[in-house]
Amino acid sequence: MSAVNVPVVESALLQIADKRQIKTGRERLAEMSPQCGFGELGTCCRTCYMGPCRIDPFGDGPKTGVCGITPDAMVARNLLRETVGGAASHVGHARHVLLTLRDALDKKVPYEIKGESKVLALAKVFDVPTEGRDVVAICRDLVDIALEDFGRQDELPNNWLSKRAPKIEQQLWKDLGLMYSNPHNEIETAMHASSMGNDADPMSLMMRVLKMSLIDGWTGLALAVDLQDILFGIPEIGETEAAVGVLEANSVNVATHGHNPVLSEKILYWAERMNEEAIAAGAERINVVGVCCTGNELSMRHGVKLAAHNSQSELILVTGAVDAMVVDIQCIWPQLAQVAKCFDTAFITTDPMVRIPDARHIPFEPQHADESAREIVGAAIEAFRRRRGKPVDIPQLKSKAIVGLSLEAIVGILSKVDPVDPLGPVIDNVANGNIFGFAGIVGCSSIRFRDGAMTEEMVKHLLAQNVLVVTTGCTAHILGQAGFLTGEATNLYCGEGLKAVLSALGEAAGLDGPLPPVWHMGACVDNSRVVDLLVGVAARLGVKVGQLPAVGSAPELVQEKAISIGGSFLAMGVSCHIAPAPRILGSPMVTQLLTSDLSDVTGAVVRVEVQAERAAQWMVEHIAKKRDALGLITTGVR
Amino acid sequence: MSAVNVPVVESALLQIADKRQIKTGRERLAEMSPQCGFGELGTCCRTCYMGPCRIDPFGDGPKTGVCGITPDAMVARNLLRETVGGAASHVGHARHVLLTLRDALDKKVPYEIKGESKVLALAKVFDVPTEGRDVVAICRDLVDIALEDFGRQDELPNNWLSKRAPKIEQQLWKDLGLMYSNPHNEIETAMHASSMGNDADPMSLMMRVLKMSLIDGWTGLALAVDLQDILFGIPEIGETEAAVGVLEANSVNVATHGHNPVLSEKILYWAERMNEEAIAAGAERINVVGVCCTGNELSMRHGVKLAAHNSQSELILVTGAVDAMVVDIQCIWPQLAQVAKCFDTAFITTDPMVRIPDARHIPFEPQHADESAREIVGAAIEAFRRRRGKPVDIPQLKSKAIVGLSLEAIVGILSKVDPVDPLGPVIDNVANGNIFGFAGIVGCSSIRFRDGAMTEEMVKHLLAQNVLVVTTGCTAHILGQAGFLTGEATNLYCGEGLKAVLSALGEAAGLDGPLPPVWHMGACVDNSRVVDLLVGVAARLGVKVGQLPAVGSAPELVQEKAISIGGSFLAMGVSCHIAPAPRILGSPMVTQLLTSDLSDVTGAVVRVEVQAERAAQWMVEHIAKKRDALGLITTGVR
Ligand code: SF4
Ligand code: SF4
Ligand code: FES
Ligand code: FES
Ligand SMILES: [Fe+2]
Ligand SMILES: [Fe+2]
Repeated sequence: MSAVNVPVVESALLQIADKRQIKTGRERLAEMSPQCGFGELGTCCRTCYMGPCRIDPFGDGPKTGVCGITPDAMVARNLLRETVGGAASHVGHARHVLLTLRDALDKKVPYEIKGESKVLALAKVFDVPTEGRDVVAICRDLVDIALEDFGRQDELPNNWLSKRAPKIEQQLWKDLGLMYSNPHNEIETAMHASSMGNDADPMSLMMRVLKMSLIDGWTGLALAVDLQDILFGIPEIGETEAAVGVLEANSVNVATHGHNPVLSEKILYWAERMNEEAIAAGAERINVVGVCCTGNELSMRHGVKLAAHNSQSELILVTGAVDAMVVDIQCIWPQLAQVAKCFDTAFITTDPMVRIPDARHIPFEPQHADESAREIVGAAIEAFRRRRGKPVDIPQLKSKAIVGLSLEAIVGILSKVDPVDPLGPVIDNVANGNIFGFAGIVGCSSIRFRDGAMTEEMVKHLLAQNVLVVTTGCTAHILGQAGFLTGEATNLYCGEGLKAVLSALGEAAGLDGPLPPVWHMGACVDNSRVVDLLVGVAARLGVKVGQLPAVGSAPELVQEKAISIGGSFLAMGVSCHIAPAPRILGSPMVTQLLTSDLSDVTGAVVRVEVQAERAAQWMVEHIAKKRDALGLITTGVR
Repeated sequence: MSAVNVPVVESALLQIADKRQIKTGRERLAEMSPQCGFGELGTCCRTCYMGPCRIDPFGDGPKTGVCGITPDAMVARNLLRETVGGAASHVGHARHVLLTLRDALDKKVPYEIKGESKVLALAKVFDVPTEGRDVVAICRDLVDIALEDFGRQDELPNNWLSKRAPKIEQQLWKDLGLMYSNPHNEIETAMHASSMGNDADPMSLMMRVLKMSLIDGWTGLALAVDLQDILFGIPEIGETEAAVGVLEANSVNVATHGHNPVLSEKILYWAERMNEEAIAAGAERINVVGVCCTGNELSMRHGVKLAAHNSQSELILVTGAVDAMVVDIQCIWPQLAQVAKCFDTAFITTDPMVRIPDARHIPFEPQHADESAREIVGAAIEAFRRRRGKPVDIPQLKSKAIVGLSLEAIVGILSKVDPVDPLGPVIDNVANGNIFGFAGIVGCSSIRFRDGAMTEEMVKHLLAQNVLVVTTGCTAHILGQAGFLTGEATNLYCGEGLKAVLSALGEAAGLDGPLPPVWHMGACVDNSRVVDLLVGVAARLGVKVGQLPAVGSAPELVQEKAISIGGSFLAMGVSCHIAPAPRILGSPMVTQLLTSDLSDVTGAVVRVEVQAERAAQWMVEHIAKKRDALGLITTGVR
């Protein structure tokens, strides 16, 4: 197996940074520590100018804010604004894709429908007639259905929620008042409700947190992914490589970083067509590599190599080998521009919403997508020209990685075992305990946990207990770099039951070896694919999603988006592990609700645990309880 | 003159609180102090879980966040989220009124058009044909025009901005990229841009702050006020009283608190019709009084008495004489429910967005407005029954106050002097220096400044220098309680020039005495009336609003809304004084921009000054500069 330990990648890169005297996030974090305890507990409020107010829940000081708000409501209100930040990000992403698709249908932007089968599948979901209609017309109906959700002031149920989400969970959401109509109304209302002198009831605020999380899940993730699959095609299984070693000393290395494939697809397209220019500049070729989620997008659809997860984004720049890092939206550390300045690297921002001091800004708008992408690739070639001949420092570390496991790809593989009832074999193996359960391990990579390989350690424990792991986001990079996205990992880490299943599936799929034990399902938005998978399995079993022997985890929380995605899992009834603690511990009520009482509401709870083995153990126990409740075998398999 | 010093009202109430051993905000503020300096400077960031990050701009610690963001961008990003909180509040308020009006036209809710002339005036603004059409049909067109703004995904200019705002300023906004299309898109985008790893350029972020402020100004304030005038009528000049002494020991006292007249109008309506029930319960009558902005709304349209500004909202409860305090949205201290519990007071929340622990919740929805309002008034009568015979403690302090100075009311008075060119006499008096200039003194009442009577002291200085003052919000309560909304105040405080003008106007208006020197123009949303007044004067003079000898002030900042309203003044070119400092002082760039460089952008600057006389002096000097630039007399008048 070609796997490397992540700390190996990091320590190689940190050594280079050190040698070049470039400060990294780890040092900034150390300097910033100790960090503010009030902030960490969630009991700091700056919502009005009678504050800032801070409450030490363990001390003798004030027990409410100046306005009289309790720490419970303060924490819930702060958490609500975090989920708005997260949901607004995903809704914004989805809306951008939606408008791009709309304009593509009118030939106003140079994009096409590459996922016809997705159009047809969604047409079925949304009752759009298909007979005798061309795909553009069908697609236009879908676009109108999505657009309607943003414009409505009628309080009718949101289309992308009410038609796309499973009915059985919708009944619960209805009962809890969580169904939403226009996502923009809700974002406005949440910001309003969380301003001074409005909602002060922690339970009411927490229900808003869940509602905002549903918005993230359905109008953010699901909508974005559905439409991206239409524009760029449904991912299919394929192989690639992961870790910094995918950079090539003698190629023009273009690192795409961010989240929105509307940019990165065009970069890739033009990079493939501008190879000659690169060669003329003395390069072997143009090597497009992926960072963070847009890396996952390109990797899922085109097998583009994965260079770095988020917390490595500054580190791969110290190689000196990245000719251009081109970014769109979300998770872009402003520091990147400063590191790039130490090299010939062109650090290029493209989105009007992401301006960074000392970056080069090449505006990228879908209308002029081709011109801009050409300009960006050209800038990379220019940068290569400047760097040519200078020494670079690329640690030769990388792993093989199987990627592209969209739900459709998974069903495709399973169909080879049972074409009539593809999920049947999975269900049987869950029932007999070969698959003890499912874990969705997703989210960010955090410098707080990287050096202990938090995510990898958790996964090892889970696989040994026959828990099948699906992954997205930067977590997928981490696991890819550590070699978990390979058939070898199945042999190396899995318990006997899981190994048997994955081997059989690998054979059926025509791979020469088992399927990997960790399935890379995509970017952060592709958590909707994880949900779709669970929904499919639950439907096949005739149970609620929350009854499945399944659990989520965001083991290295960084982003507000992770909070709202996590909330969308909780609303589905899927319990989640998280580390570090969300900013809730200053509120007894919110802590109690999320870690315990929520199980009576949606059926899910949150578990905070910063130690990998204990986290995995809790996940296994949680799965065991679900198995018990379903009357499935639990003895002897652990 | 019946004026009282505000500290007299406060000290009377604080004495009662003390006697009854009820803690107040002042004590909570004292306990909370010293407050967090990082928070106050704006250099604390909790946008992601690598933080919280804090930067001491004067110390030796870290100079950026862990992600590399600079204190400049950190401050601007925090400020942006404050303006989103403010703008979302006002947009939410406006949208609620819009939907109520829409449903009223369809007779789905029990409200009617009381402001026909406003419908016709707006029809002209929005090019809606009126000839031969009934007012409901015209109004429906206006509603559709407003609704279009919320649904659009076409990036065309927002209707309520582009048709309602002055053309000359629009050109500037266009050049600066501040014109917006769909306000909801912008709120989503601002929350997205301010989440981790997006906008990190302080200038770009500050432009977003201005854009969000424009949204507050036009889709928040102006839209809300326009439609409220349609539903409830345009305010006319009238007389009322202000301060706690308006409570009546033997009446059922119903205090309406909050912001949205859709509730308070119905409370007033039913209170007038349920007097018999109150009498049957042993009361003399039902006495509806106003707190905070909904108090201003009722006062402007019905002469309802003003009981308390925001920071007195807990204090009037200690009288024991408030039978019901019924609240809708915004600025409601959660503490109120706790104070109410010490008495027979029914503290009633009504809005789904405002839940407060220990409050009684009577849902108020426009569809069932009458039933709910009756239930609420009934609850007040019930509470009176419980309190009847118990001693109450109402300080006998109140002032007379002239209210209702909508732009239309002002023009009405001026028309009596010059029916053809109503603004003519104003212009002449500005030119000759009798009116040295205009000051809009608006916003919150803050316990940080109340005990020094910050607002009143400023106003005294301004009036002595012949600066005409217009006011809204809690500031209007403060000035009302202090007797500034009377003709006597003109004689007592104004310089000779201003006194002469106001005396002449008072005579023309048929008052027996001068007009007051401080014009009460309404609630916080009615800052759009202030803007309309300035726009009218500027148009009459043929200059830009920013060229007028006019200045704004929010001398007792509390709310996020005040930040976004202030921003909307800045975008119009109107400089503003503010106290305390917004959370910007940790950023050299943002501080420099707002206090100085912005004058090259929009023509306006911010002045932070916590001392009343110095603040007034700066305002007078600012006005003098504007006069100079217009070539108006400045000598001899100060
Ligand atoms: S909203 Fe309340 S707790 Fe928050 S800063 Fe204001 S007074 Fe303090
Ligand atoms: S966004 Fe940057 S400054 Fe803010 S908490 Fe995260 S790392 Fe710190
Ligand atoms: S006091 Fe530390 S985050 Fe507010
Ligand atoms: S450290 Fe005080 S507000 Fe964050
Ligand atoms: Fe991501
Ligand atoms: Fe107000």
